[in-house]
Amino acid sequence: MNEFDFINKYLSSKNNSNQFSLNYRDDVGYANNSIFSTDTICEGVHFYKNDKPLLVAKKLIRVNVSDIIAKGIIPKFCLLNMSLGKSVDDLWLDKFMKGIHSDLNFYKLNLIGGDTTKNLHNTVLSLTIFGDLKDKKFIKRSSAKLNNSIYVSGTIGDSSLGLFCRNNLDFQLPKKYSDYLKNRYLLPEPRIELTNFINKNATSSTDLSDGLYSDLKNICMTSKLGAEINFSNIPLSVAASRIIKENPTLKSQIINGGDDYEILFTGPDGLDKKKNITKIGKMTRGDQIILTDFDDRISLDGYKHEI
Amino acid sequence: MNEFDFINKYLSSKNNSNQFSLNYRDDVGYANNSIFSTDTICEGVHFYKNDKPLLVAKKLIRVNVSDIIAKGIIPKFCLLNMSLGKSVDDLWLDKFMKGIHSDLNFYKLNLIGGDTTKNLHNTVLSLTIFGDLKDKKFIKRSSAKLNNSIYVSGTIGDSSLGLFCRNNLDFQLPKKYSDYLKNRYLLPEPRIELTNFINKNATSSTDLSDGLYSDLKNICMTSKLGAEINFSNIPLSVAASRIIKENPTLKSQIINGGDDYEILFTGPDGLDKKKNITKIGKMTRGDQIILTDFDDRISLDGYKHEI
Repeated sequence: MNEFDFINKYLSSKNNSNQFSLNYRDDVGYANNSIFSTDTICEGVHFYKNDKPLLVAKKLIRVNVSDIIAKGIIPKFCLLNMSLGKSVDDLWLDKFMKGIHSDLNFYKLNLIGGDTTKNLHNTVLSLTIFGDLKDKKFIKRSSAKLNNSIYVSGTIGDSSLGLFCRNNLDFQLPKKYSDYLKNRYLLPEPRIELTNFINKNATSSTDLSDGLYSDLKNICMTSKLGAEINFSNIPLSVAASRIIKENPTLKSQIINGGDDYEILFTGPDGLDKKKNITKIGKMTRGDQIILTDFDDRISLDGYKHEI
Repeated sequence: MNEFDFINKYLSSKNNSNQFSLNYRDDVGYANNSIFSTDTICEGVHFYKNDKPLLVAKKLIRVNVSDIIAKGIIPKFCLLNMSLGKSVDDLWLDKFMKGIHSDLNFYKLNLIGGDTTKNLHNTVLSLTIFGDLKDKKFIKRSSAKLNNSIYVSGTIGDSSLGLFCRNNLDFQLPKKYSDYLKNRYLLPEPRIELTNFINKNATSSTDLSDGLYSDLKNICMTSKLGAEINFSNIPLSVAASRIIKENPTLKSQIINGGDDYEILFTGPDGLDKKKNITKIGKMTRGDQIILTDFDDRISLDGYKHEI
C-alpha cells in the first residue's frame, strides 16, 4: 500500500477529515494559526546502523524543516520521539544529541517536548515540527494555476545519485564528485533562505522528498492540472551531469530519485531571476505530466512511499 | 539511564532549554498559546503482537489525552506517526484505524497530520497532541504549595494489578475481578470530565502514568517540597482490595505500579467533596515522601521510565 492509498482508505473518506488536515492533501496540517508537519525515520529503512549519529540527527531535523519552509513558513518549535534500538550505546546517543542541538541552534528551533523509550529491535525516530503564520499566508500544494511556470531550487537528483555511489563502490567516478553526491544524500540542506521568497511569490509549493515526478504529480493531482517539463531544463550539479554521462541509465534518478529536499513550486513567469531558482516547465490542462527532451524508454514511476 | 538522567544530561543543561519546554520539568511543552505532549508506544514493550489492534489504537490516543487533561486543558488536535512492523497485516491496520477513528470521535480530536512508514521489525507508534489555552491558565506539576492537600481521581493500582493478572493466569481471583483489573490495564479512561475542575482548583497536577510514588516525586522535586501520604487513604477498587487481601505483597503495586491514567493533583482543602476525588495526603517541607500506615519492608522505588 502506498501513502495515497492509505490516505484514501483510512483518512480522507472519513467524516472527521476537515480543514485542519487540509483533507490530508498536503504534507502539513493547520491549527491554532500554525503549520505542522511530522516525519519518521527508521534504522534499516531511512538510515543505517553504521551511519554517523550526528548526521542521522541532522537529517531527522532537516527533512522536517524542509516540509515547513516549502510552505513559506519558518519553523520554530519541535517535539522529538526516540525509540532507541539495541544498537544504540552511550556514545551513539552522545553524538546523536550533539547533532540535535547543533541543528536546533542552526535553525533557531525550540525543542519543547518529546518522549524517549527503549526499543527491542531497531531505532525509530520521529520529529514533529511547527511554525506560526503571524498573519502570513502559507503556500499549499493544491493551488497551482493553469499556465503557471514550474520552478525548482538548487540542483536535482544529487541525493539519489549519492545513494547510488554509496551502494556501488566500484562505480568509476572522480572522488570529488562521488563525495559531493554522497554528502547531498547524507546531509540535506533545506533552502531556508528562500522561505520568504516562496511565501511572497509561489502559487503552490512542496519540498522534493519523494522525487521530482512524484512531488510534481502531487501538485498536479491536488491542483487538478497537468504539467509539461523539459528534461534539459532541469538543473544538474556538475557531479550529476558527469555521472549521467558515464551511465546514461541513471538519468531516471533525476526524475524518480527522492531525498533532494529542494523546493518545487509554481508561480508567475520571471521568478527564475532569483539566484538558485530554475524554471523547468509549466502547468497545463488535464492530468498528465509530459516530459519532453527525455529518453522515453525510461519509466516515470517516481518513488512510491510504500508503507 | 532513566528519563530524568536523560533530561539532565542532554536537555536541561543546554542553553536552548527555555520557557517553551518548561525546562523539561513537566510532561508538556507550551508554545503559540497551546499545550503539547507526545508519547510513543513500542510493540514488545508497551503493547504486544497479540493485543487487539483496536485497543492498542485507543491506548495510544488515551495516554496522550491523559497528559493534556491533567494540565486542565481539553486536547483538540493530534498527529500520528506509525512505523508498521512485519506483524502488521491489512486486518490489523483496518482494526487499528477503526480504533483511532473511534477515539478521535469520542474525544473530539482532529487528526491534522502524520507519517506512516514500514518498519523491518516491530511496530512503533507515536502520537503528538495539543490543545489551546483560550486565555485559560494551565496547571504545571511544579507549582504545589506547602500544606496543600494531595488528591487523586478514581482508584489507584488497578492497571498494574491487571497486568499482574494477565501475566499470572494461575493466580486465583474471581473472574469478574480479574476481568475488571485487566480491562483497566488494556483501556485507560482518562478523566476528561475533571478537566475544568482541575483548571479551576488545582495548584499542581500530573497524570498517573509512571506510578503514584514516581509521579508524586515529580511534583515534589519540581515544586521543591516533600509529601506525606497515608496508605489507607489511597482509594482502591473492590477488585484491587480483594487481590491485595489474597496476596499482600501486591500492596507495593498500589504505590509503584504505573499506567493508571488517573489524575494526581494538589490544592486547598475540601476538593474531595467532588465525586471520584480522594484526599491522600499533604505537601510538606523538605524533599522526602513519607508514606504512613504501610508495611515499610516494601521498597518505594516507583517505576523508573528506563530508556
